[in-house]
Parts: sequence; C-alpha cells; structure tokens
Amino acid sequence: MTIKLNKITIIGVGLIGGSFAKGLKQLGYADAIVGYGRHADVLQQAVALDVIDHYEMDLSAAVKGADLVLIAVPLGAMTAIMKQLKPHLTPEMILTDVGSAKTSVLSAVQEAFGQIPSQFVAGHPIAGKEKSGVEAACADLFQNHKVILTPTDETSSKAVEVVTDLWRALGAEVSEMTPEYHDEVLAATSHLPHLLAFGLVDLLNDHAELGNVFQYTAGGFRDFTRIASSDATMWRDIALNNPTAISKWLKHYQAELSHLIDLVDNQQGDALFQLFDQAKTARDTHIVRKG
Amino acid sequence: MTIKLNKITIIGVGLIGGSFAKGLKQLGYADAIVGYGRHADVLQQAVALDVIDHYEMDLSAAVKGADLVLIAVPLGAMTAIMKQLKPHLTPEMILTDVGSAKTSVLSAVQEAFGQIPSQFVAGHPIAGKEKSGVEAACADLFQNHKVILTPTDETSSKAVEVVTDLWRALGAEVSEMTPEYHDEVLAATSHLPHLLAFGLVDLLNDHAELGNVFQYTAGGFRDFTRIASSDATMWRDIALNNPTAISKWLKHYQAELSHLIDLVDNQQGDALFQLFDQAKTARDTHIVRKG
Repeated sequence: MTIKLNKITIIGVGLIGGSFAKGLKQLGYADAIVGYGRHADVLQQAVALDVIDHYEMDLSAAVKGADLVLIAVPLGAMTAIMKQLKPHLTPEMILTDVGSAKTSVLSAVQEAFGQIPSQFVAGHPIAGKEKSGVEAACADLFQNHKVILTPTDETSSKAVEVVTDLWRALGAEVSEMTPEYHDEVLAATSHLPHLLAFGLVDLLNDHAELGNVFQYTAGGFRDFTRIASSDATMWRDIALNNPTAISKWLKHYQAELSHLIDLVDNQQGDALFQLFDQAKTARDTHIVRKG
Repeated sequence: MTIKLNKITIIGVGLIGGSFAKGLKQLGYADAIVGYGRHADVLQQAVALDVIDHYEMDLSAAVKGADLVLIAVPLGAMTAIMKQLKPHLTPEMILTDVGSAKTSVLSAVQEAFGQIPSQFVAGHPIAGKEKSGVEAACADLFQNHKVILTPTDETSSKAVEVVTDLWRALGAEVSEMTPEYHDEVLAATSHLPHLLAFGLVDLLNDHAELGNVFQYTAGGFRDFTRIASSDATMWRDIALNNPTAISKWLKHYQAELSHLIDLVDNQQGDALFQLFDQAKTARDTHIVRKG
C-alpha cells in the first residue's frame, strides 16, 4: 500500500460502490469509509455487512473532509448528484465515478461545475453481476478485472495516480483511454451484446403464435441470454447515455446479419464455415485463454 | 425398463451418439451396442471408454440383426449414409436420428429410400456441449433435457414407442411435433442465437481499427459468445439444412434491432425500460426458474 486516506465517501452504496468500499475497508485503506444514499435501510445494511464504517443522510456531512469521493449512482442520476456536490467541493477532494458511459458523465460534470474540475477522474470498472444492490457487494469483485480511466487534458495527474492506486489495491488492472474511445469500445463489447440479448428474449416473447418456445431452449440459450436478466433501469440509462456509439454498433451488427442472411439464402457453405471457424478461433484465442 | 433389445447400432460415435450408447450400455438396455464409423481409432477409443461393446468398419455387419439403428452423423452426411443403409434395412429394424434440422433429414430419407420407411423415427435431443467427440460422451448428457420426435403420418407408432422409451430411459423428456414446427422453434431458440454469437465475434474481429477489443470484455461477453466456440462444420451444416426458418428468424431479429435503434436514436427511455424489463421478466420466469 502506497497511500492511506483519511476519509473516503461512497455516494451510492450498491453493488459497485459497495464492493469498492468493502475491498478498501478490508485493506484498511482509509481511516473512515462513509456511505451516502437516499435510503437509510440500505445504508444500515451496508454498515451491518461491513461494507462501510458509517453513513450520512446529509450530503454535506458525508463528503466533509473526504480525500476521495466515489460516485456510484446510476447514469441517470449523475447530473443531479454533481450539482448537489458542487457547493461542497474542496480543492483537496478527489472525485471519481464508475459510470458505464464516459462522454455523458463528463458532460454532466461540465454542466454541473461549468468546467471539468481538475480533481475529477472519470472511471469505469468492467465488472458486474446479474445481482445488484449492496447485499451482492464483495471485496474481490474487481480482482483481475479491467478498470478504465478516461482523464482529460484538465485532469490532475496526482488525482489519476491516487485513483489508479486504489483500483490496483483492489486487484484491478487499470488502463487509460479517451472518453470517446471508451464509449466506442464499450458499445461494441458490452452495450451491444446486452441489447442483443434483451432483443432476442423480447422477440421470442412477442411471438406468441409459436407457443412457449422457451421450454425448448438449452444451456446455450441460457448463457447467451444471461445478460438479459440485467437491471432494466441501468440498461435504459446506458442506452440513453451512449446512444451514438450504441446506434452505430447496432447498425454495424445489422450489416453483419445481412451478410449472414445472404450466405444462408444462397447456400454458401464454404463462406459460412469460414466465418464460423474464424469466430470460434478468435473467441478461443482471446476469450477462453484469457480465463 | 420396459423393453430390452438384442442389438443397437450407433452410426457416428461422437458426443451425441456416444452419450446415447454409453447411457444405454450402463442401463443394460441391449445385449450388444455396436459402433460404426469411418475412423477405427475413434471406435477403438469408444470401446476403451465403455461407450460401445464393439465396433464394425463394415456397415452391413454393423447393422445386421440390429433392432435399432441410431444415426448420429453430421447433417451434411445424412443423405449419403441413408443411401448406404438402404440395402441393409429390414422390416424389424427401427431407424432413428439426432439431426438438429428435421425437414431436411426427412427429405434425405425420402430421397434415399424413395419414401419415408414406417420404421424411421426422426428425432432431436436438445443437448450438447462445446466439446465434441466421443471423449466428451457421458451417460447423463440427456438427463432432464428435451428430446423432440417428429413422426409423420407414415411412421409406425410402435417404432415411436420404442424410441421414446429409450430416450426416457436416459432421463430425457420426450415430446412430439411436426418437422416444420420443430425447425421453426429450433431456428428461433438455437440456430438464431448461435448465428448471432458467431456474428458478434466476427464483427469485432473484423474491426481491427479498434485494436484488440476482446481484452475489455467481461463475464457477460464470455457467456453471450460461449456458443460461438461451437463446431464450425456442425453449424455450417445446420445453416445449410434449415435455411428458410433461419433466414426468416434472422430477418425478424433485424426488425427487432431496427426497433431498438429507433428507441435509442430517439431517446425513448420509457420504451427502452419497458422492453428491457419485460425481457428480464420473461427470462427470469421461463429460463432461470427452469434451472
């Protein structure tokens, strides 16, 4: 451990905020880890589960004297919470977030503060579970997972260093990229497959003339659609906050499907084999070996 | 156990044929379970793994005196094997298969025999693994899985009864439907998601300008694309043998994506939430609870 903080405040003690808090608390990374949220029962549960040391229902008290504030609220609540934070921001306080779309978070920060404060470090841990809420929080959620930071020209390198250090302490592999590249890559690798999975279940659910086709599904379908059991509010917010890249990748994907339809309609066995085989090889190489 | 057969012959001792054989062998369902295939080393391995009792490299010897012949070859080899079987068919011999598309198998049978023999029972166990080959065969592969039989008007009810009995003995839940309905349902629930998964990996693999985006994927992507690690030859054959239904469902799915694109482009948060939430509810109801 290279640093120790006096006080870390977690705004939004759910799965992600709670796992961040719980991990750092177990490591003794701060004298106090304080939770803030709208629901006292959730915060009480967070204390009971050893996720946070204590909690505040008043934002001013929650962030007062904090070295670092982690904002782990849904994307849809980002602008509002930034505006509420503004009067309490001190020059020493590092702010960071965990939102799944980064250009929109930076816009929210810009809108709330009139500029991007140098101590704001936009971040996104690529980790999650189907389950949400503080009861699902676990100290090793980020172990061997990527965390992407998207600092801008204004961002203090010292703040980036502290945030990097915290994520690394939790076992994450931290990388940096532009917010635009982040949103593009996440649209392709995460937002697209989530929408595809929701779309498939919706499609089959809508074709009542087929009967309950779900009864004829097997393990492949179960795994393919696992992410369609994700939280609908979170995914609505992501779709609304990264629309350009998501729309673009959905269209790329439609073009891919047009190609597949063409191959199927024209009985292009060799081309179908080649496409399937290359995809299998790419997945076996990049995903399976990654472990 | 209600019946005991003298001899069962397995044509194509891979994952499916091997699991069928191994399960029935453990149950003592036949005096002899004989394997037939093109590769002596595979058949020797099948004997060593207690999957079959013995094997024959000559088709005539393999099926001679068999009460039941299970045809578990790739869809692409179906017509050829049926033609080879024709001279050896006796009235007492029940024939059944495990192909993933049923109208094309029935066409192959029709082509080979000039009609659908009454003792042919088209079947499809909805079970599988990413791994293929006899070494992956296991006696409980079909336990609690669906097996769909698609008898036609010509099919002997006695033959259907025997085949049903064997699958039930292996723990499967047997249902009957028309070949056309089977192909429609399987296109929607299995062939479509497989092509979608292959397509997604192919799409990302083709966009080299993004760099290796696979490194930023997490568990959701891994599960979503698991079926893209399936055997390319098998899936080429399925695509070639159920093209009408697959093409139709790919087009239905493109329309679903057009709807999603429209919602994203127009920031329709309520409609996105509703679609995601209904999909989540449908999956949680029909897939998760099914276990």
